[in-house]
Amino acid sequence: MIETVHIEVLRELLGSKGLLTEAGEMTAYETGARYDCGRAAFVARPTTTAEVSAVLAYCVRNAIPLVPQSGNTGLVSGSTPDGSGSEGVLSLDRLVAPFSLDRINRSVTVGAGLGLSELNRRLEGEGLFFPIDLGADPRLGGMLATNTGGSRFLRYGDVRRNTLGIKVVLADEAGTVLDLGSGLRKNNTGVDWKQIFIGTSGAFGVITECTLNLEPLPRQSATAFLVPAAPDRVADLLVAMEGALGSYLSAFEGMSGNALSAALAHVPSLRNPFQGGIVPDFVILAEVSRSSLPREGEQPLDAVLEEVLAGIWEKPEAPLADAFVGPPHEMWALRHALSEGVRHSGRLIAFDLSFRRGDVMPFLARMKAELPARFDAVTICDFGHIGDGGVHFNLVVPRDDPRLSDAAFETSLREWVFEVAVEDFGGSFSAEHAIGRKNQAFYERYTPTPIRKLAAGLKAISSPGPLGSVNF
Amino acid sequence: MIETVHIEVLRELLGSKGLLTEAGEMTAYETGARYDCGRAAFVARPTTTAEVSAVLAYCVRNAIPLVPQSGNTGLVSGSTPDGSGSEGVLSLDRLVAPFSLDRINRSVTVGAGLGLSELNRRLEGEGLFFPIDLGADPRLGGMLATNTGGSRFLRYGDVRRNTLGIKVVLADEAGTVLDLGSGLRKNNTGVDWKQIFIGTSGAFGVITECTLNLEPLPRQSATAFLVPAAPDRVADLLVAMEGALGSYLSAFEGMSGNALSAALAHVPSLRNPFQGGIVPDFVILAEVSRSSLPREGEQPLDAVLEEVLAGIWEKPEAPLADAFVGPPHEMWALRHALSEGVRHSGRLIAFDLSFRRGDVMPFLARMKAELPARFDAVTICDFGHIGDGGVHFNLVVPRDDPRLSDAAFETSLREWVFEVAVEDFGGSFSAEHAIGRKNQAFYERYTPTPIRKLAAGLKAISSPGPLGSVNF
Repeated sequence: MIETVHIEVLRELLGSKGLLTEAGEMTAYETGARYDCGRAAFVARPTTTAEVSAVLAYCVRNAIPLVPQSGNTGLVSGSTPDGSGSEGVLSLDRLVAPFSLDRINRSVTVGAGLGLSELNRRLEGEGLFFPIDLGADPRLGGMLATNTGGSRFLRYGDVRRNTLGIKVVLADEAGTVLDLGSGLRKNNTGVDWKQIFIGTSGAFGVITECTLNLEPLPRQSATAFLVPAAPDRVADLLVAMEGALGSYLSAFEGMSGNALSAALAHVPSLRNPFQGGIVPDFVILAEVSRSSLPREGEQPLDAVLEEVLAGIWEKPEAPLADAFVGPPHEMWALRHALSEGVRHSGRLIAFDLSFRRGDVMPFLARMKAELPARFDAVTICDFGHIGDGGVHFNLVVPRDDPRLSDAAFETSLREWVFEVAVEDFGGSFSAEHAIGRKNQAFYERYTPTPIRKLAAGLKAISSPGPLGSVNF
Repeated sequence: MIETVHIEVLRELLGSKGLLTEAGEMTAYETGARYDCGRAAFVARPTTTAEVSAVLAYCVRNAIPLVPQSGNTGLVSGSTPDGSGSEGVLSLDRLVAPFSLDRINRSVTVGAGLGLSELNRRLEGEGLFFPIDLGADPRLGGMLATNTGGSRFLRYGDVRRNTLGIKVVLADEAGTVLDLGSGLRKNNTGVDWKQIFIGTSGAFGVITECTLNLEPLPRQSATAFLVPAAPDRVADLLVAMEGALGSYLSAFEGMSGNALSAALAHVPSLRNPFQGGIVPDFVILAEVSRSSLPREGEQPLDAVLEEVLAGIWEKPEAPLADAFVGPPHEMWALRHALSEGVRHSGRLIAFDLSFRRGDVMPFLARMKAELPARFDAVTICDFGHIGDGGVHFNLVVPRDDPRLSDAAFETSLREWVFEVAVEDFGGSFSAEHAIGRKNQAFYERYTPTPIRKLAAGLKAISSPGPLGSVNF
């Protein structure tokens, strides 16, 4: 239990709205988006960088552990307290100011608590957007802390690429505030310190403000579903599409037939777009888009896409078995429903992997070949981002399978998948969800000793206080 | 003088071709591209990461300072030894292996000593390139160590954005080798350590190998020279061009009339493209390009550019006074000759600044207004990258001006320019050339104390040995 005197001081610092301590009002902050839930000693809800600094300084001086929480949409137990009841939650939900658009610089400076969809809503009238396309609607601070990627990485990259500056508070006895970068695009004046705080789950400091690169809104787009001639032709298809379309290509997403079927079964608003309702084994969602306005005499993008697909199709030994262009809204709706569909179809054992692009399909093939012998009741419902090598590798298991009550069984299954992905294929055990408590053990296993020593050293010289759910 | 025993050990490690000690053969390694030249204790030329590791370990254990040197094309005295004769040069010029192309992943893994033009020559047949467009032809290790940007940053970003992984050797007693990232595009498994070594001039370790993102080669391009209606309309012109063209726009370069005139006067191969030969006060080079192949019925890019320019021109209070589309090769030849032209027209006092994009022209206006009162004999020959806020701010002074023999005069002039750029405009004192000995004093002046402490702390825990020309 936290001492009453600490609660009194924190309430003094933050005001009554700024500090929650009642069990009922803390529930949402204690519960993760998909996984376990913990118990918070309190929830601090600062509204300014100065308040964050005051809270961090006080907590570090009194050895009170804090877990920063942004939109709490993460999937790795990164933003919720553990079960001890001794960790405080530092929520960004009231830290939504400033909002300062620099139209000429194509950048915006915002409070880290602002939501992604709210940011893009406010920018729409300017013809600009923050180009990270996700299924969830997180707040920006968490997006930076986890370096989210998403479905249009191929065109726009990740949060890291689109971050021009941050303000961050360290977990030291002074609550030191670092102002790292403003809106400069070219700036090489030493270590680019903001990179340390991006993707490290808040362990090195709490990001309170960020300056983000904005991109012109796409004005035209077209999408198609492509059925590869065989799983091992997917890479050829990607190379052919990039060769013909260059930077027009803004998404190249892979969807297993199992994931598609799960979505079609469990999300009633979806229409089955496949001929005879027969879902292929593997489907690519390809998108082409451009941010210029359509001009007279210009070929519409769906015609461009048709033409390119026809060109690929006509070649001998084409990597394409079937393809059809369709409305982007419907095609993306199916893509974005995969996660929900898969969740509804059983108990989910989920992995957030990535590979060099050419290794995605060989990894999946290996899993398909070897998994049944290890666990016969499992269905592989993978989907992901072939264009950037990301794979949401989902194993769905009947909820009543008796083996699931054996924790060791699931652990050994997880360890085997990681072994193949990381050791055999050189892949990543955390492509875009970051570490969190959920991946702590794998961080320790797969990070070489000199790197772990560097990280621990960096933690000691920057934010020595207990901050975040990851132990670097 | 370095002890003979050290030379013997190093020769043993590197072989006779791998170590230079004769005055004559070291000259090229002691002399910088534009600035001062120093004296080397020796030049080590390893061919593998293991040799780099052995050299670093030996030198750290024996307190022998090393300066890593890549293509030695830098402009900030970052890669040459000082005048003491006690520093060894660690040259990457023989470290050109491996060369491993991953076609599907659109990435290549190469030795850090490979040259940029040689890399792109080898990739041409694949329809791919490493999209950093520079005037010089550096080697890749130095490009990473200085995080070069260049003329097509607007489309492709800097070296940081395009680096998927590095191998780096620390300056510790073991010569520890870190293998940071392979070819993964999405990977969030802790601190992204490669970021620490990018842009820090080799002070934290020697990059020996890198895995780079490649982009499809542009297949079509068109360029135009634009004359803004007034200097303060340049930003409007950029916004209008980006609004109409979106990501077609791949360069938006600013060129002062003085820089253009200097190039036309001193580079005989150039043709004066301006009407009546009268060079405007300020000219924009705009480029549109795409990597898709031209297809039937598609409007050629020069027509697209013409049409967009006409659209901007026709609006009331247009930001455009004049514009003409011309051959990309000729227009870029003029742009790329500016640096040479400026160098030939007098003694050069050069700055590598950057700003938020909207601040570029106001900064230039302030300089034009205030500089003559401080130094009447100076000509401002600026050019740069309006699209990313970079400004090569060049002051050209008659070589025989007596004030130039007074070092204090030049120093005070430099300090004043930095004061206005950094303090008044929030700009960067090193946009894309990095720090080197030349910017050491400005690093110390403009870097806040907590950041300097962090950098010194990081140096101590990563590469405590004497490495590089920058003192972090």
